[in-house]
Amino acid sequence: MVEIITIGDELLIGQVVNTNAAWMAEEINGAGWSVRQITSVSDNADEIRRALDEASGRAEVILMTGGLGPTKDDITKDVLCDYFSTRLVINNQVLKNIESFFHRKGFPLTELNRNQALVPESAHVIENLLGTAPGLAFEKNGKRYVSMPGVPYEMKQIMEVYVLPELLKSSGDQVIVHKTVLTQGIGESFLAKIIEEWEESLAPDIKLAYLPSPGIVRLRLSMRGTDRMMMEKKMAEKVDALQKLIPAYIWGEGKETLEENAGKLLKEKGKTLATAESCTGGLIAHRITAVPGSSGWFTGSIVAYANRIKTDVLGVSLQDIESHGAVSREVVESMAAGARNYLKTDYALAVSGIAGPDGGTDDKPVGTVWIAVAGPQGIKSRKFLFGDERMRNIQRSSTAALGMLREVILKEE
Amino acid sequence: MVEIITIGDELLIGQVVNTNAAWMAEEINGAGWSVRQITSVSDNADEIRRALDEASGRAEVILMTGGLGPTKDDITKDVLCDYFSTRLVINNQVLKNIESFFHRKGFPLTELNRNQALVPESAHVIENLLGTAPGLAFEKNGKRYVSMPGVPYEMKQIMEVYVLPELLKSSGDQVIVHKTVLTQGIGESFLAKIIEEWEESLAPDIKLAYLPSPGIVRLRLSMRGTDRMMMEKKMAEKVDALQKLIPAYIWGEGKETLEENAGKLLKEKGKTLATAESCTGGLIAHRITAVPGSSGWFTGSIVAYANRIKTDVLGVSLQDIESHGAVSREVVESMAAGARNYLKTDYALAVSGIAGPDGGTDDKPVGTVWIAVAGPQGIKSRKFLFGDERMRNIQRSSTAALGMLREVILKEE
Repeated sequence: MVEIITIGDELLIGQVVNTNAAWMAEEINGAGWSVRQITSVSDNADEIRRALDEASGRAEVILMTGGLGPTKDDITKDVLCDYFSTRLVINNQVLKNIESFFHRKGFPLTELNRNQALVPESAHVIENLLGTAPGLAFEKNGKRYVSMPGVPYEMKQIMEVYVLPELLKSSGDQVIVHKTVLTQGIGESFLAKIIEEWEESLAPDIKLAYLPSPGIVRLRLSMRGTDRMMMEKKMAEKVDALQKLIPAYIWGEGKETLEENAGKLLKEKGKTLATAESCTGGLIAHRITAVPGSSGWFTGSIVAYANRIKTDVLGVSLQDIESHGAVSREVVESMAAGARNYLKTDYALAVSGIAGPDGGTDDKPVGTVWIAVAGPQGIKSRKFLFGDERMRNIQRSSTAALGMLREVILKEE
Repeated sequence: MVEIITIGDELLIGQVVNTNAAWMAEEINGAGWSVRQITSVSDNADEIRRALDEASGRAEVILMTGGLGPTKDDITKDVLCDYFSTRLVINNQVLKNIESFFHRKGFPLTELNRNQALVPESAHVIENLLGTAPGLAFEKNGKRYVSMPGVPYEMKQIMEVYVLPELLKSSGDQVIVHKTVLTQGIGESFLAKIIEEWEESLAPDIKLAYLPSPGIVRLRLSMRGTDRMMMEKKMAEKVDALQKLIPAYIWGEGKETLEENAGKLLKEKGKTLATAESCTGGLIAHRITAVPGSSGWFTGSIVAYANRIKTDVLGVSLQDIESHGAVSREVVESMAAGARNYLKTDYALAVSGIAGPDGGTDDKPVGTVWIAVAGPQGIKSRKFLFGDERMRNIQRSSTAALGMLREVILKEE
């Protein structure tokens, strides 16, 4: 068992979301270990010591992040010296790394940064190639401890070069196999009802979890044992059966995103895409361009936030906007057609909706969203009714739009 | 003291980032209470019980989220019955809420959802207006416990209607005052060096923390005591002194975002904005349109991911692209001018860069980004050199661009 302790006042006052813990937990699982508990405590010596004591009683490996920065609020190193009965000494290798780090960046070296070369004498020092605070590994009573900086990419690098290889070396025979099926277009409880019998047919050693997020429900199957091949096979059979049961809702597996999946489809077919976004305001284009290599199939987007851009750039008729409103089948279809013609792509995806908090009417309440896909075989459009919350409406609109795009591409095969 | 226990296997295998805990912690702080620890445990009865026991030993109020869903993996309710020595009974009010929830949505009611009306008999039931699992409050040995669903907006609603008002009622005289100063355009250790004397001048009861995120460092001052007015005054003086020390780097205070801040400036001056985005792929437009009311000053964006859109839509000359490359002063300035003319706004922000992982050269490595702002008084442009990581480069580019926009607007005053 592994435990993660994330240290920092910013976590306990909610100023920072703990993305480090999620990333670490996923990687630790991948290396064949389970995470028993994730604990966040403040930059306070007593609290850090207590968390270390408690975690040591439950796990063999304790991973810490945070509190190693150059500034005065960072006290983890002092606590570690005390906890492992050692003292701070200058480490020349770390000092050299810090100096060369600043030299590479062309920045002058401050005294604060030079102090980061002070490390606990008994620690095994893990080089930080991306920053100034090194990783620190300790052993005590047969338990292993690693302290890492809280800056995500620095922590990740130390996990990758040191922690994960160490965990893999000693994970023994036990492996955990996860398989995640990605669904879209159906709510959690309806899905549970449709797949009830299938769920009951799962062997007791297969654990199922429902993970809902705006517009998407992920189904995660987990199994623990020693025979990876047998487990993979058993799970694959169950996933196949599920695939036959709800083909319309399943769009992928594992960590794939909807935008990666849509991109893969377009790439396979040698087709291109553009978007025309009103209420999603660029989020669809952002999600798409977050995928490395998306320039191969995505040309661009017209974010037509003002109606004037809808008419002037996308060629929507002013009359359509005046008689049907900007959030209407007519306007969204003509946005899609306009983007497809103007940006010269095979497909174009258009969204127009009322994200809120203002702009709703009795006829078209906040959450009303029209989505259209223009493709080689014409235009498809659909109306959605999401909820009251602006950011959630924007998120769900972008997910529903990517889902619709996928559907249309597959139907046109 | 409050403790937060977030329950769910998905947290311990890293499939879900714990955004609930951050939101709750911030609100709890705002209500005058401190969070001592945040603990994530799996959907396992023993682990949940242990976490409850430990938290009860440290805090007066224990808030739980997760494990209340309709599906089989959700076991929190059973554990609570056991922990508080009670049993599940049908609650008619909850059943009515569930029925009307499904009626409103136009969905049929499943047996699984009906079961959500089963609640621990000794619990105080808190209505869930946005979903089917109600909140559950308990008391035991003078400690208070509230269990809430893990779906963020359902949890938030229960926090707002019940938990926060209860905390406010009993927060006594102690208050915590936070003040956060937002800086941009300078790294953590350089900032620490410049403000070293100021930092040393802080009274010992004022705590300072550095919170770096891509392109931004937030400085948070915290103070605890009973005299809010005196504390506010003391902190305001320190913030004023800081403002005088580093005026060029400070752009705001509190929870404001750079996009909100830029929007406020534009609105005050009655000016409008458009963007032309290449490597940021719509992220700037998305950040802007996430701000409610941004339609008052933002007209739209041309996401010119393909060079063809840069020439055809934005009017960049093909010759400029061929002789200087798409990531160059010439091209980004002409993108900004093109967007400003074409979308008819006062200002236009343009970004062109190499986000990676591919596309870097010796001359222009991955992370090279050009940003331009076109305004009534001409065009300003600047080259940035960020790092190796695609998403981080996209994030930092969008932040640097919004920072530059702000700078130009202020200079043109």
